[in-house]
Amino acid sequence: MTTCVLSGGVGAAKLLAALASVSDPRDIIGLVNTGDDLDLHGLRICPDLDTITYTLAGLNNQETGWGLTGETWRVMEELGRLGGESWFSLGDRDLATHLYRTQRLSEGADLTTVTAELTVKLGCPITLLPATHDAAPTRFLSADGQGLSFQEYFVKHHHDIAIASINLEAAAQCALTDAARHALESSTHIVIAPSNPLISIGPLLAIPDVTTILSAKRASVVAVSPIVGGVAIKGPAERLMRELGFEASALGVARMYRDLASTMVIDTVDASLAPAIEQLGMQVIVTNTIMDGGPVSATLGQSILDA
Amino acid sequence: MTTCVLSGGVGAAKLLAALASVSDPRDIIGLVNTGDDLDLHGLRICPDLDTITYTLAGLNNQETGWGLTGETWRVMEELGRLGGESWFSLGDRDLATHLYRTQRLSEGADLTTVTAELTVKLGCPITLLPATHDAAPTRFLSADGQGLSFQEYFVKHHHDIAIASINLEAAAQCALTDAARHALESSTHIVIAPSNPLISIGPLLAIPDVTTILSAKRASVVAVSPIVGGVAIKGPAERLMRELGFEASALGVARMYRDLASTMVIDTVDASLAPAIEQLGMQVIVTNTIMDGGPVSATLGQSILDA
Repeated sequence: MTTCVLSGGVGAAKLLAALASVSDPRDIIGLVNTGDDLDLHGLRICPDLDTITYTLAGLNNQETGWGLTGETWRVMEELGRLGGESWFSLGDRDLATHLYRTQRLSEGADLTTVTAELTVKLGCPITLLPATHDAAPTRFLSADGQGLSFQEYFVKHHHDIAIASINLEAAAQCALTDAARHALESSTHIVIAPSNPLISIGPLLAIPDVTTILSAKRASVVAVSPIVGGVAIKGPAERLMRELGFEASALGVARMYRDLASTMVIDTVDASLAPAIEQLGMQVIVTNTIMDGGPVSATLGQSILDA
Repeated sequence: MTTCVLSGGVGAAKLLAALASVSDPRDIIGLVNTGDDLDLHGLRICPDLDTITYTLAGLNNQETGWGLTGETWRVMEELGRLGGESWFSLGDRDLATHLYRTQRLSEGADLTTVTAELTVKLGCPITLLPATHDAAPTRFLSADGQGLSFQEYFVKHHHDIAIASINLEAAAQCALTDAARHALESSTHIVIAPSNPLISIGPLLAIPDVTTILSAKRASVVAVSPIVGGVAIKGPAERLMRELGFEASALGVARMYRDLASTMVIDTVDASLAPAIEQLGMQVIVTNTIMDGGPVSATLGQSILDA
């Protein structure tokens, strides 16, 4: 009985931790978006894989809400003095992850293997799988006509820029890994994490065969809304959904996933949307989805496994 | 009136500092060996360029004799915990240099440009030029038949392994940069630094046209012996020279450079070798060559410029 979770970064990490708290972590697989990955300073950086690894290993900085606990910034300080590219903050501990990954990739190891090594070394108890080994960067076109990489959009502009379109062409051209395919095909439960539907889940769904597999297994697919009370729990999901013509609500999310998931988990504050979602042909679970890393998370995790 | 110094690492850095102390640093060019360069963790590391830059910028750690002052090791500590490749120690400040370089190279800047940027930012007052933009790694064959990269030989084995041959094939296939060619051709003085003749100066001389230019300008070429009293001031020069059939003495060094340099600078302890070196057709300057960063260095620098 394994659960495969289509995952972005922070929201997915919380959900994976919730699931791991109520079941055997070895039965949980995170199928992780790599559309945000970037090469910077020659290093391969995989923000979603790392966010999940650090969080599940208990190494995330709970005070700041991002980055590693006990992190220091010696390299970045010096790089700033050199006038180097320092807009993407890389802590010293975090850099070790990227050095390790880049070295192993340069030796010919694939990202699935390297990710497995890092999760074991760092103490992340679940399996994380990149969905693809191909470079498949998500691109943006801003309303004022600029082409932007994910990190230019997200970090440089702090996602505070109007977006005209999201380009997932690269994801559409890449190949699902064998391990990812097996995880999707063999899992008893598939969960779509409460990650941004457009820029975290979207790139996963754009990879050939993913929607085909989910459609075929729709009865065992559960999606958790990242929009609560019309607001994204974190990040630009709400604004992006509006700008790109989607309704920024749990109902809007349900419309995006209706052909892929049979069950939609929405927050209690959105209970009134349940009938409309049911009319889309989905079952609805109404529960508290604002995860606390404790009892609320556990209840949410159990509800999903019971679905 | 410019002085172009064929340079390895530590010994060359001391000599360049000596020359800069008695003349306008803007008239001094270090033509630097890149045969030790390596790609590790995805980063381009140029040990000789960095050693010289740090030393001339006054950033070298004078207590340890290597590395940067005020250096910390956060990234390496963490990389060690991950089980990553940590045999080549990279301090946090030093890493910033490699991140900067690698990023700029990935943007299309050439190593000459990036080196100029780094010397300016770090405060190295002389011009440093890599001799080539091509990858030209020095390789070793150990007496027991292992092929070794420079850093495997030098750092992993602490150069404590018998060497059967040095392979400079890559250097022989690469191209001198335009800037390096111009520096060699237009300089009024050319100096061969007291760096290892086989593995620091050798890779420079192996680059096509370097020996041709030096031969043609032999009258203005001065070489400084790195062997003093039959012992290398630092590093494996003495052992390597013996193993590869050269006499490990200032005379042995003079024999290697006799066709390229008209003047040999040897230490006072080797004064008795002067007649034999003169018989090779070279002028000899006998002076104190153990540089102290003060008056001894200044005297040596002035002797070279006066030669």
